[in-house]
Amino acid sequence: MHDHPWLRLALAAKRDGAALDAGVWRRIIEGYVAGEIDDAPVAALAMACTIRGMADAEIAALTDAMVRSGDVLSFGSTRTIVDKHSSGGVGDTVSLIVVPLVAACGVPVAKLSGRALGHTGGTLDKLEAIPGVRTDLDNDAFVAQVNRIGCAVAAQSRRLVPADLKLYSLRDRTGTVPSIGLIAASIVSKKIAGGADAMVFDVKAGSGAFMRTVEKATELAQTLVRLAASFGRRASALVSDMEEPLGAAVGSGIEAVEARDFLRGDERDPRLAEAIFAVAHEMLRVGGVAAAEIEPRALDALQSGAAYERFALLVEAQGGSRAALDGIAAHPHRATAAATGDGVVTRIDAAAIGELARELTTADGPFAGIRIIARVGTPVRTGDVLAECAGSAVDPAAVARAFTLGAHAPPARKLVEAIVRDADLAASSNARS
Amino acid sequence: MHDHPWLRLALAAKRDGAALDAGVWRRIIEGYVAGEIDDAPVAALAMACTIRGMADAEIAALTDAMVRSGDVLSFGSTRTIVDKHSSGGVGDTVSLIVVPLVAACGVPVAKLSGRALGHTGGTLDKLEAIPGVRTDLDNDAFVAQVNRIGCAVAAQSRRLVPADLKLYSLRDRTGTVPSIGLIAASIVSKKIAGGADAMVFDVKAGSGAFMRTVEKATELAQTLVRLAASFGRRASALVSDMEEPLGAAVGSGIEAVEARDFLRGDERDPRLAEAIFAVAHEMLRVGGVAAAEIEPRALDALQSGAAYERFALLVEAQGGSRAALDGIAAHPHRATAAATGDGVVTRIDAAAIGELARELTTADGPFAGIRIIARVGTPVRTGDVLAECAGSAVDPAAVARAFTLGAHAPPARKLVEAIVRDADLAASSNARS
Repeated sequence: MHDHPWLRLALAAKRDGAALDAGVWRRIIEGYVAGEIDDAPVAALAMACTIRGMADAEIAALTDAMVRSGDVLSFGSTRTIVDKHSSGGVGDTVSLIVVPLVAACGVPVAKLSGRALGHTGGTLDKLEAIPGVRTDLDNDAFVAQVNRIGCAVAAQSRRLVPADLKLYSLRDRTGTVPSIGLIAASIVSKKIAGGADAMVFDVKAGSGAFMRTVEKATELAQTLVRLAASFGRRASALVSDMEEPLGAAVGSGIEAVEARDFLRGDERDPRLAEAIFAVAHEMLRVGGVAAAEIEPRALDALQSGAAYERFALLVEAQGGSRAALDGIAAHPHRATAAATGDGVVTRIDAAAIGELARELTTADGPFAGIRIIARVGTPVRTGDVLAECAGSAVDPAAVARAFTLGAHAPPARKLVEAIVRDADLAASSNARS
Repeated sequence: MHDHPWLRLALAAKRDGAALDAGVWRRIIEGYVAGEIDDAPVAALAMACTIRGMADAEIAALTDAMVRSGDVLSFGSTRTIVDKHSSGGVGDTVSLIVVPLVAACGVPVAKLSGRALGHTGGTLDKLEAIPGVRTDLDNDAFVAQVNRIGCAVAAQSRRLVPADLKLYSLRDRTGTVPSIGLIAASIVSKKIAGGADAMVFDVKAGSGAFMRTVEKATELAQTLVRLAASFGRRASALVSDMEEPLGAAVGSGIEAVEARDFLRGDERDPRLAEAIFAVAHEMLRVGGVAAAEIEPRALDALQSGAAYERFALLVEAQGGSRAALDGIAAHPHRATAAATGDGVVTRIDAAAIGELARELTTADGPFAGIRIIARVGTPVRTGDVLAECAGSAVDPAAVARAFTLGAHAPPARKLVEAIVRDADLAASSNARS
């Protein structure tokens, strides 16, 4: 590798706690993507960022440099294009449901998604469980579909933010994943490159999420909203609970079934419904819908069947069919995970449930998985059903062990711990200045 | 690269401020030297060590792992073998003089040295300026020479501490050079692999040194002595001033001339003499000479010519001749750097003088260089000689600009700021416990 004196100075500065400016971040990202800077200095820099932290202006500079590393989509539309990001959870079927719901309310949604990561599910895997559905839309097809039917869900193209692909894989093996600044730059750069005018972040907190505490999740939520605002994007971030799986279904295909049933009105898990309404509310808000309009429009889209209709259009546009959508069902083999004692469910290990569901789908196909029956707070007796397994690849007793029983119900936790909105931050920042 | 789950855990632990244990450091160094671990995670780890610091036990574990990465010399001697390390300075001719001086006092010296680095000179380059002299002794020749004539000066073999070669070059390009722990492990591992039973460290502080402040240099000095002691090695560390060049001569060949003249008694720069006596004192102390014996023996070795005789033996043993040693002289072209005003010399920029001397030796051969005439504190008038250039490759006015003149003499600085001895640390540690 060539010697880069400016890079040495930058490393020394960041090591000693300074913030690097936009020009330096641009040169680093350009040089790294071009292969003129190798992994070693970037790994050291990422570690310095993780330990020292990053100032807001520095995160914005890095984000800008990352956006410039690849294509930037444009919808050529006067309407506000919204995207939504979830930091990854277990049983998180929210994206599949809110995308057509928000589109049915008149706000276009251009959703770029990732694959399953570790024990958490990926929206792409869930959608692709519907026979025929593809998510590898090219840039033009993605833009055209959003403009035509108001929504699309596609895989992040390798031409959008190539710097992120390279940087994420480096961070993954150098202990530098848990940096608020690097996480925020990774998330927001992809949303901006994807052409979103407004964005909602669903930051999960708890044992099933990457952010283990509400405090850390709130810090990330605030950073994301400030960062989006610095690019002139309207944004909200929710901090939501991931101490237990969000929906009842865990497993890519059965989460698609749950999404379909929710939209069609067959079955609506109350916990999932609460999350859906909170996220849809924020997406409609940043999409420009007046506050008084939001609730009635969302309810109407669900009750009239418009949201389901939009989901069917999306499935058809991406290679599936209504028949295929109507035909999906959980794997026929069923086994029950039963309580081995009396008590109240005090905890459901979301990470363990996620891992077990992944084992099931790997062995028995996409429609295998786990259905949570006894939620946290439910009193049970020996032999009562805690969960139902679709598929035969895991021992139901292992699923039962992910449930902790206690003598007393734990204190109730809020599903949505906090909502951070761009307007609130602006108001509090004005109040400070 | 393979995925190493234990390495991920180690990176996360160090990132969060924990100390890694001996087993982990051994696996990291073994894997890195074997090429099973690539640069990226090691670069991130080095940055975490630099920012978080390293506990004594951790530095010892790393040092031990580094020693085990290559050969370890053994002198098969019941006598205490001493080595001496200097952290690098300008006009630092001390090693060339103390090696034969201490050997002439009956304490064998096995000196492993490095090359010039940046603006600082290297003992190997100075010795090799004497026609015929080689420093690439193999392990057996090095050991045999020390056992036969009591001293040798050789290049660090690539078979001793190969981990250090790889790690140092990585640190150099990742902003992780200034870590007390990594510096100490690098220095002490090489001394232990080189077979030294006792060691003296000369840690330079000031604008011409890698440690810019006395505080940082003292921290390194204490760490070095504690680390050596943890391996059962007697040790002393001096913290010495490098705000101006140490000896009068700066340039590899003319420093060899200065060393010869000092040993032969032709000319003894008082500042250089003070450094020589301080370092020789510590080397004789750790070498087992009784306190009352040290001063008289050293003076006798110099005055009797025994020290010079030992230097000539070393030159002959390493391929040179007495005639070659007697024949070396500064480059005949002379130019004077003159004062352009009246005042007192308040500062001599050692780093600038070092760089200019390197330009001269590169262009005009090893015996070009700079001779300091007006030391800090000297009153001068316009046209007075500040320094003499041997060789024509640099503008004498550039040399003059390295001298700062002021109205008043600056406060006197001590040449040796502090001496840290193993016994003192043990005493203070006993007092604490």
